[in-house]
This record gives sequence, structure tokens and C-alpha cells, in this order.
Amino acid sequence: MKAIRLHQYGKDPVLEEVDEPKITDPWGVIVDVEAAGLCRTDLHIVEGQWEPIQHPSLPYILGHENAGRVREVGSAVNNVSPGDTVIMHPLTSCGLCPPCRLGQDSHCENSTFPGVSVDGGMADQLLTNARAVVKLDDGLDPKDVAALADAGLTAYHAVRKAADELFPGSHAVVIGAGGLGHIGIQTLAAITSAEITVVDRSEEALELAQQLGAHHTVRAGDDDAVASQVLDITGGGAQIVFDFVGEQGVELLAPRLLRNRGSHYVVGYGGESRLPTIEIISREINVIGNLVGTYNDLVELMTLTAQGRVKLHTSIYPLDAALDAFHDLDAGRLVGRGILVP
Amino acid sequence: MKAIRLHQYGKDPVLEEVDEPKITDPWGVIVDVEAAGLCRTDLHIVEGQWEPIQHPSLPYILGHENAGRVREVGSAVNNVSPGDTVIMHPLTSCGLCPPCRLGQDSHCENSTFPGVSVDGGMADQLLTNARAVVKLDDGLDPKDVAALADAGLTAYHAVRKAADELFPGSHAVVIGAGGLGHIGIQTLAAITSAEITVVDRSEEALELAQQLGAHHTVRAGDDDAVASQVLDITGGGAQIVFDFVGEQGVELLAPRLLRNRGSHYVVGYGGESRLPTIEIISREINVIGNLVGTYNDLVELMTLTAQGRVKLHTSIYPLDAALDAFHDLDAGRLVGRGILVP
Amino acid sequence: MKAIRLHQYGKDPVLEEVDEPKITDPWGVIVDVEAAGLCRTDLHIVEGQWEPIQHPSLPYILGHENAGRVREVGSAVNNVSPGDTVIMHPLTSCGLCPPCRLGQDSHCENSTFPGVSVDGGMADQLLTNARAVVKLDDGLDPKDVAALADAGLTAYHAVRKAADELFPGSHAVVIGAGGLGHIGIQTLAAITSAEITVVDRSEEALELAQQLGAHHTVRAGDDDAVASQVLDITGGGAQIVFDFVGEQGVELLAPRLLRNRGSHYVVGYGGESRLPTIEIISREINVIGNLVGTYNDLVELMTLTAQGRVKLHTSIYPLDAALDAFHDLDAGRLVGRGILVP
Amino acid sequence: MKAIRLHQYGKDPVLEEVDEPKITDPWGVIVDVEAAGLCRTDLHIVEGQWEPIQHPSLPYILGHENAGRVREVGSAVNNVSPGDTVIMHPLTSCGLCPPCRLGQDSHCENSTFPGVSVDGGMADQLLTNARAVVKLDDGLDPKDVAALADAGLTAYHAVRKAADELFPGSHAVVIGAGGLGHIGIQTLAAITSAEITVVDRSEEALELAQQLGAHHTVRAGDDDAVASQVLDITGGGAQIVFDFVGEQGVELLAPRLLRNRGSHYVVGYGGESRLPTIEIISREINVIGNLVGTYNDLVELMTLTAQGRVKLHTSIYPLDAALDAFHDLDAGRLVGRGILVP
Repeated sequence: MKAIRLHQYGKDPVLEEVDEPKITDPWGVIVDVEAAGLCRTDLHIVEGQWEPIQHPSLPYILGHENAGRVREVGSAVNNVSPGDTVIMHPLTSCGLCPPCRLGQDSHCENSTFPGVSVDGGMADQLLTNARAVVKLDDGLDPKDVAALADAGLTAYHAVRKAADELFPGSHAVVIGAGGLGHIGIQTLAAITSAEITVVDRSEEALELAQQLGAHHTVRAGDDDAVASQVLDITGGGAQIVFDFVGEQGVELLAPRLLRNRGSHYVVGYGGESRLPTIEIISREINVIGNLVGTYNDLVELMTLTAQGRVKLHTSIYPLDAALDAFHDLDAGRLVGRGILVP
Repeated sequence: MKAIRLHQYGKDPVLEEVDEPKITDPWGVIVDVEAAGLCRTDLHIVEGQWEPIQHPSLPYILGHENAGRVREVGSAVNNVSPGDTVIMHPLTSCGLCPPCRLGQDSHCENSTFPGVSVDGGMADQLLTNARAVVKLDDGLDPKDVAALADAGLTAYHAVRKAADELFPGSHAVVIGAGGLGHIGIQTLAAITSAEITVVDRSEEALELAQQLGAHHTVRAGDDDAVASQVLDITGGGAQIVFDFVGEQGVELLAPRLLRNRGSHYVVGYGGESRLPTIEIISREINVIGNLVGTYNDLVELMTLTAQGRVKLHTSIYPLDAALDAFHDLDAGRLVGRGILVP
Repeated sequence: MKAIRLHQYGKDPVLEEVDEPKITDPWGVIVDVEAAGLCRTDLHIVEGQWEPIQHPSLPYILGHENAGRVREVGSAVNNVSPGDTVIMHPLTSCGLCPPCRLGQDSHCENSTFPGVSVDGGMADQLLTNARAVVKLDDGLDPKDVAALADAGLTAYHAVRKAADELFPGSHAVVIGAGGLGHIGIQTLAAITSAEITVVDRSEEALELAQQLGAHHTVRAGDDDAVASQVLDITGGGAQIVFDFVGEQGVELLAPRLLRNRGSHYVVGYGGESRLPTIEIISREINVIGNLVGTYNDLVELMTLTAQGRVKLHTSIYPLDAALDAFHDLDAGRLVGRGILVP
Repeated sequence: MKAIRLHQYGKDPVLEEVDEPKITDPWGVIVDVEAAGLCRTDLHIVEGQWEPIQHPSLPYILGHENAGRVREVGSAVNNVSPGDTVIMHPLTSCGLCPPCRLGQDSHCENSTFPGVSVDGGMADQLLTNARAVVKLDDGLDPKDVAALADAGLTAYHAVRKAADELFPGSHAVVIGAGGLGHIGIQTLAAITSAEITVVDRSEEALELAQQLGAHHTVRAGDDDAVASQVLDITGGGAQIVFDFVGEQGVELLAPRLLRNRGSHYVVGYGGESRLPTIEIISREINVIGNLVGTYNDLVELMTLTAQGRVKLHTSIYPLDAALDAFHDLDAGRLVGRGILVP
């Protein structure tokens, strides 16, 4: 089959013929890939940034946001059948370790991460397992949802964790209305009744944010001005600030936008959170970490998508033109999320 | 009546005769003080450290950990009567603002803080209000509990917030087995089923910790050694680390002792929490602020105390000898918590 | 002032001149009534059904759903000022008893219930207290919201308690799309992402339900047919069934519509819940009681109303024509909620 | 191997030679049984009461409370190895259905129930699966814990669900201090700080209850007298009433012992819960169903047992004498829990 494989860090991946995957594990599932999302993480992988964390054996197939149609299932699989359309949770979890038993499968102690630690979905076929596949509603097309499998799932997970505190009259602030942020805004509007304020550097992003459900927007730039506007809009600070940036000073601005007892939800990364402990205790504020979502989160996100409450803008590339997509993404020419279609 | 008043920052407070308080508010309560705790915060107040936060009008009466017997009540008070023995929540809350309506009265927007912002309890009488008084069980002596009103309440509040996550088989780590920490250990043992590991520099403190319910103790000193021992004891990190120090590097050590999805409960202060956002998100860990407890927390803490599950060591001084107590505390000669008795 | 007073059970209340109320309690608040809701409970009060529960001293003024403008406040009131428009929580709570300290003020141990246990709002002025008044957003007119103060608040309270379990893909069933039910449907649509199925005997009510946010409707009549349809729509039963009827067999039908681990939220009353304990445990289902909402619930409901997410249909009567309104309600001639305007 | 098989309802099971089980599923686990609990459910199975619910194919091996040592594991099993001592969750769950993904595996949609629906553990060997086995702490002997696998687990599950509401000063009432109840009392004392009141007909059971942690005991008999005493002890009713009987009128007494907002936890069964809806709503009380615990509950219960906080009284019978054990249990001659040892 055809596949996009990474042979060497720092060099372009290669489109080539490789052997089809085979099921060895009774829980194995092989999927005919119909869509593989391409995101900035793929560029970081090619640069070698993920090597120290996941150290895959080169060469291997990229693609960690995958959807398609089940082709073959292992002997113990009873939740999907050949022909079902599915989206894949980014991790194949084990179902036996303590986090899995709690429903916290994104912390599975025995997982693989296709496209990052082992062969992924930029290929005709993908090997995954029964605990990673979510059946799609008839109305959903793999091309439209594949890119929700990782980035979208992360944004949804953070919103879902905070939802219980976002009652009518509460305030949620979203910093960063880009790839994750615009899923965050849509899901905030869909599952909470908070008033939503979006902060971003781009006027275009703020306009889109309003269409997606933001009640207020604030142009980023001067932190003091942003803080002053947000405290004004929120009547003294937000219950939750979703920080989809996590670097470039946003991680220091975010806590300034909280009211007493509020929480800074860190989703983006790259910077360093720094808070005097006197401030943490006197305001009784929190800093909350957020990883990718669980399998159940992905099921819920697909439900919202089937209901038309979450939408993605995509640019489709045939798998044969995958390198064009990589280059377009790198050069800032790719509008919306890139999707490779075999 | 007699009172210990602060006239000037940086100088000893003064024992002198002052007018008795009068009830003007229908919710006012006057208490014959039977015990006023003396703590390190009193020394900081005398030094002037709290002036920028609370800016009381000098001279004023010190004493923010108070217990005694109700002397007189305002026209609207129906929850205590003259003669009742009571302990005072450190804040007089309003009962009308949003935090009060949620039961989060420690964040009351209209509170006073007797002994810090207005006249306190190092005197024959104290003016407080109906929403601050907790009736004491017959078996409790004001002298034995007064010092729980602020420091003990803070420790209990943090433990209480974390209790739902401290199921059988979970691990709680306590850093700092001093004034707050030893209440923290006792209440952890009383209301959770977690395995408790205590970290402290002092061998004596660790021995006391074991008597109070700690299952494991680790001598502080070298952070790498502490981290290695704690990760070993806890099988990969604690669900909750209670940081009763919050400075001197403990605020940086604490997150190293967490397992994935664990929380660093900040109680002590003075330092700065610093965490790369990549670490916050990849481990999905949290930093949780903790202020003094609520009124309900104080009710519960008094219940535990009446049940004999929480005990304080105290040194009693007559109010006339208050300055000796201040000097003994400053010089490290005061064993246990100092209690002034009019 | 003018007032509608009940002199004798079983006889029409009387429009007459009475003395204006006076503030004696420092937390007292006198409101110029601008709207008083009239509901079926008022008819039951006149019939004498509430006498054994609240035993008011006759004659007294009816009206337990009130909104208006603050006229005068007691010496300790700091949360409203004369001129503010307000809606009244049906209970005047004390702020001192254990339920009040927890934010569960609808269980206050020292409350009055104006219009039911003491003088109410079918008059020019109403005496209430500071803990009962919720300030209205500028855009809200007392006439449009008064009838939410009791019935609407009860419906919202039940929905709010269940909201944490109503995630995307979950199912909520509403039985009874009348006065409470249609607020229930609107608030379900506003604060949850559940799929909503409404069951009612009236085709008109079901049509309205769809306009208010119901995704599915089922005509009541034959219980077996209803159960079969609902189990089909919900894929095996709902997470939550809101029973706004609570009698006439609905209280027995409701548990049949639950999936394992689901909850029957009882809001309406009159019948008897009966469940074999083997069924309770083998399906691990719950029966959940729901009283009127808390003060905080009313604040949130007013927020939703100001946002245009909750609407009431009303019929306005001048206070002078109150008896016409009583008779119209009794005869089934009153469309929407009746509102008396002084 | 030797096994106790049921050939015909209404007749004694038979000790006989049968084939050893074989692993066919990659998640299969075969255990050398070291202890199989015998309980009243086994008598009910023999009588045929479970046939309509589980309809096993006769003949089959009894025994649903099992512990032992792993003999052989399927190809996909990575959480236990041959030689490990284990206790078995009563259900073999699938790990793929929605309840399993939530950690609610006791509601697994694809489970078997060894000893009830398929071959159980009254034999030399038992076939189970990887998701049912909990490794035992070195200090635990299968004979001492086997009988916790079902009845004990059910009691623990109910206590664990209620634990968050059982803060210091709260009241838990336990009705029925028999098999389940005395595990309930021990675990209440271990994981909550509630004051515990136990109600039972037997003076001996009440004495044992006190040794196990009950703070108050009330002799059952006259319901009015019980209600009066419990309301007195609890200051107006309990937050939680654990009903380990669920029949014989206890299911009607239990709600009378609740305070407002309290919950009747149904664990035992046989009777019918009956409550006027007016009482459910005016007191805002709940009826909560409780099935057997989850896998995680069993892990926690084993932790408490290893810590010495939960203990069972047992009577050991060799497997060859299993029929004596059945007859002794039926005749009321069996003291403590019966354990069959191959």
C-alpha cells in the first residue's frame, strides 16, 4: 500500500510502497483510511522534537488524526465490524491498567500512539485496536471529522472538565482562537451556559469567534489593557480561563483574568507558569493541566459534531500530494485543517 | 477593659485599659474572651507586613484566633445566646454577597477580620457577629481550641477539599509537619483513607507525625533524595501533595512528588510556583490554592476536636503577660501554640 | 393600601384596604409590588389544602410569586437600595442555620413563606427581607418574570441538579409540558446538551415543546406504548426522567423510562412512588426529590431570562380584577400564567 | 478435576469429576481455586430463583465468590502472571461497552457471572478473564477474603458512593448488621467520619456492631420507637440510611429516619419502596439503588482488608464436604461466612 514515511529527522517524509499491516493481537483492528489530519505536530515530529518523548523506530508512517472504514477485526473484537465508519482515538489503550479502569484511558500505561510512536494513518490502511475506534453516525464523513481526533479532542476535554463550573452567569475566557481555540469556543457554546470572552491577536480570528458563539472579544497586544477589559466584561474576573497558547506570556496573563476561586486551564504549552504562592492562596486560584481527551470525550465530541454544533474548515489533499500539504502548512499557505485522502 | 493594642509598627504592642465594645449592628455579638491564640502572623502584623493588605486604623487590638463565652447579642441574633461557649471564625461575613450565598464565606466581599483589620480578641471582650460564632460542644474548653480558629482551619480546609480524591490505596504527601501540618496530618487520618507520607527537616517533627497518623516519613534535605523516596513509597507519585511551606524551594519540589493527574495543594506561602506548561499538560497535573476555611469547615473541625481526633499542644499565658508570650514566640522559646487568657 | 386577603377557607378572597407593612427587622425590605403571579397553588390555598402545612393566621394577603421595586430597606441591608427592581425568592431565609450556611436556603429552618404562611404580594406593597431579593437586569420587566419566582424556580432547580449528568449523547425525558414542564424544557435546552424527549397528553403542548427545544415528542395515553417509544428513542432508556406530574400513574411510568443507573426526578406530586427494591438495586436506579430552588438558582434563572433563553406567556389583570383572574384560572379560561398588577 | 455442579433445581448439587477448563479467549485466565465463598444466594440458585434472570445451562458449577492462584493466562493478558494470588470480581467484563468505558464495569453489557450464569469456583479450577482479577497483597490469604468478592463488595460500593456526603458531624444509619451490614459498618468507620448508628433485631449483632465501629445502636422491633430514637440520636434524621434489608418493612422505615435532603440507600431487596411524591419533594429526599461494586471498588476493598480495617468471620469446609456446608447454611448452623477449600 502507499504510505507517507519518515526516514530521517530534518528531511521531508517520503511517499512509498510498504507492506499492509497484519492483525496479531485479538483486539487488533485494521482500518481503510479515508482521512488523515495534518497538523503542526507533524512538522515538529519531522523536525525531531518528539524523538526524546516517543522515540519511534524509523522509518515509520506519520498521521495521528485518522478516520476511515473498518476493514478487518481481531478475534476478540465485538464493538465494530468490517464496513463501519470510524474515527480513531489517538491512543490504543489496554483496558487493564488503573487509569483505563477509571475511564482515564488517555493516561493508559500500555498505550501506543499511532503516527507518533508507531505507524500512523497517512497510508491506505492503519492498524489500531478495538479500544480506540469510535463508530461514526451515518451523517458524518471521515474527511470532516478526522482532524478532531487529536487537537479538537484536547480542546473538548478541557471544556468538558470545566463544564460543571460554567453555570448561567459565569464567565469563561478563551485565549487563542486558532485551531484548538475555535473548537473550544464551539463546545463551550454547545455544552455550557457561560458568557464567553475570546482574546486573540487577530481581528479575523475574533470575528470568526463571534460567529462561533463568543459573546465578547478582546484584541490581544497590551496585557494591561487586556486585563482591564476582561475584568470589566467579567465583573471582576472569569471562573475559568482557557489558555490555548501556554507560551509567549499568555501563561502569565491568564491568572490575572481570574476572579477569586477561578482556574487557569492550561492547554497550550511552551512557556512557564509562574505564580507567587501568596497569590495562589490569597485568591484561592488554581492552575489545571489538560491532556488529550478520553475515549468517552471523543464519543461526545462526535455526538456534538453529528448534531451540527461543531464544525471544522478543511483543505483536502490527495495522499499523493502529501508533501505539498506539508510544505503549504509550513509556509502558512494552508487554510483551515489539512486533510490527506488516500 | 484590658487589651493588647498595637500603636506603632515595629514596636511592642501595649497592655492598656480601653472602652468595652458596644453592639450597633443587629447581628453583633459580644464575647467574653477566654482564650486568644498567638501566632507568627501576630509578629508579622507588628512588623507592619499586613498593613498594605488590611490597613487597620492604629491603635487597635490584636488577636485573630479567639474563643470564649457569649456576653450579649444584637436584636437579630437567633443562633447563640448569652452564656454559650463559642469559637470565632476569623472573618465576620455578611450573608448577602455571592460567595456567602454559596457557602464560600471565607471570600465574603464585606467581611472584617478582627485582630487584623479591626479590634481583635487579645482583650477581655471581643465584638464579632452572628455569622462568625460556632457553638462549642460541652466537652470543649475555649483554651484548647482557640488556636484552631485560623491556622488549624486553613489546614483542615485544604484536606477537606481534597478528601474526595483520597480513597483507599491513594497517597497523600504532607510537606511541613509544623503548626499547620500537624493539624493537616490529624485531619487526613480522621477523614480520609489515604496512605500518608510526611516530609520534614526535623526528626522530632517526623516522630510526632507518626504518632498523629503518618504511615511513612521522609527526612527533608536533598530534594532529589526526597523525590526518589516519595516516588518509591507512593508507587509513582501522590494523588495530592499538601504543601504547608510554600517557600524555600518546597513549592518547586512538590510537583515532582505527584503522579499523573495529581494536585499540588498550596497552603504555605512566600515562594513562587514555577512549572513549564508542557509539564502541566503532559502529566495533567494541577496547582490548587487554599485560603482559610469556611464557617462550615470550622463547624466540622470542632466536631473532630470534640471527638478527640484533633489535638493541639498549647502554652498558656495570662493576658497581663502577653508581651512575654510575644517575646518567647519571637525567640523560639514558645512550645506548642501560645494562648492568652484574660 | 389595596390587598387581596383570604378571610375564610372555601370562600373567595377579598379585595380591601389594609395597613401598609412596616420594617421591624434590620434585614427587612419593603417592595412596591409591580407583578404578582397567580397559580394553581393559590386555588389550593383558598380551598384550605395548605392550612395543615403552613397554618397562616387569617385574614392574610395572598401572592407568593412577586416582583417589583424596592421602596425601603432595613438598617442592615446593603445588597439593594430603594428604586432597584427585584424579584423575590419565595422564602425569606435566615442566613444562620445549617442549610443556609451551605447555600441550601430553600431548606432554611427559620424562613417565612410570604403569600402562604404570612402576608404576600397581591397588594401594593410587600414586606420581605434582604436574603430574598434578587436584583433584576435592566432589560427585565417585573411583569414578565414574577411567575418564575416559584414554579419556574422549581423546574430550574431540578434541571440544574441533573445538569452534570446530561452530557452530549445523554437523554433527558420530560413528562408534563405544562407550567413547570415548559420552563424545564427551556432550561434543559439552555444549560445541558442532552437530547430532550417530551411526553404529554396534549398535542398542542407537544408542539410548543418542540418550539422550546424538545428533540422528540411522545403523545401520552397508553403507558406501554409510551415506554416502548421512549426506550426506542433513547436507545434503552434515559439518564434522567423529569416527572413534572408526580401523580395519575406518571410516578409509576417514569422509572420504566430509565436506563441502568438512571434517575427519576420527582417534581410534581400527588401520587405515590412504588418500586420493588429488587428493581431499584438490579438496575441501580434512583428516585430524586426536588423542592423549590435556592436563591442562587433564582439568580441563574434570571440570568437565563435576561439572555432571552427562558420565556413565559402571561395574561395581565389589574389587582382590582384579581377575583376575575381567580375565577378564570379555576374555570380553565386563563391562558399562560396570570399576573396581577397593582 | 472435582467440582460442585447443579444438575436440577430443587435438588442438592453434586460433587463430581469434570473436565478442566480451557482458555479460548486471549483475555482468559485460569485460576487454581483456593477458596470459594458459600452464601444464601447459592441456596436461592439451587431453589431455581435465579433461573429466570441468568438461565444457565444445567449442569454447571456453582461458586461466585472466588479467590486463588493464577494457573494460566491467555495471549493478551498482561496484568497477572501464573503464580499470582488473586480475588475475582464476580463479573467478567468486556472493556468495550459504554459502562465499561466509564469505569462502571458492574453494568457491563457483555459480562458473564461465573457461578451464576456459567461455571463458577466451587471446583479445583475456575475460568475467568483478565478484567476480573485483582492481585492480592502478600499479606492476604484467599481463604480470608473470598467471601468479600460479592456480598462485601456490594456493601462497600454503597458506602463508597455515599462517602462524599459523610463529613464530620454527619450521621449514617445502618439497618441490618448481618453479612453485608457488618462490612458496611467497618468500611463506614474506615473511609468516612460520619457518626454511625446501627439498627438490628439482634442484641448480639448490635454488640458486634459496636466493636466494629458503631457509635450508637438501636434495637429493632417497634418502628415508631426506632424512628423516635434515631431522630433523637441524629438530631433530626440521618444524611444517609443504608438499608441492608430492603424488605419486611425496613424499606418503609428507612425514609422516616432521613433528615431533609437525605438519601435512602437501598442494598437489600425483597420488598417494595413506597413513598408519597409530596413527601419526596417537600423533604427533597432520595432513594438510591446499589448494585455490586465495580472492579475499582474491589481493589479498594482489598486495600482496606490488607490494612486490617475490614475483617470477616469464616467457617472452612473442604470442597469434599460442600454439601455439609450447604445443609449447615440452610439449617442456620453455619457461623460466619462459609468457605469451601479444594
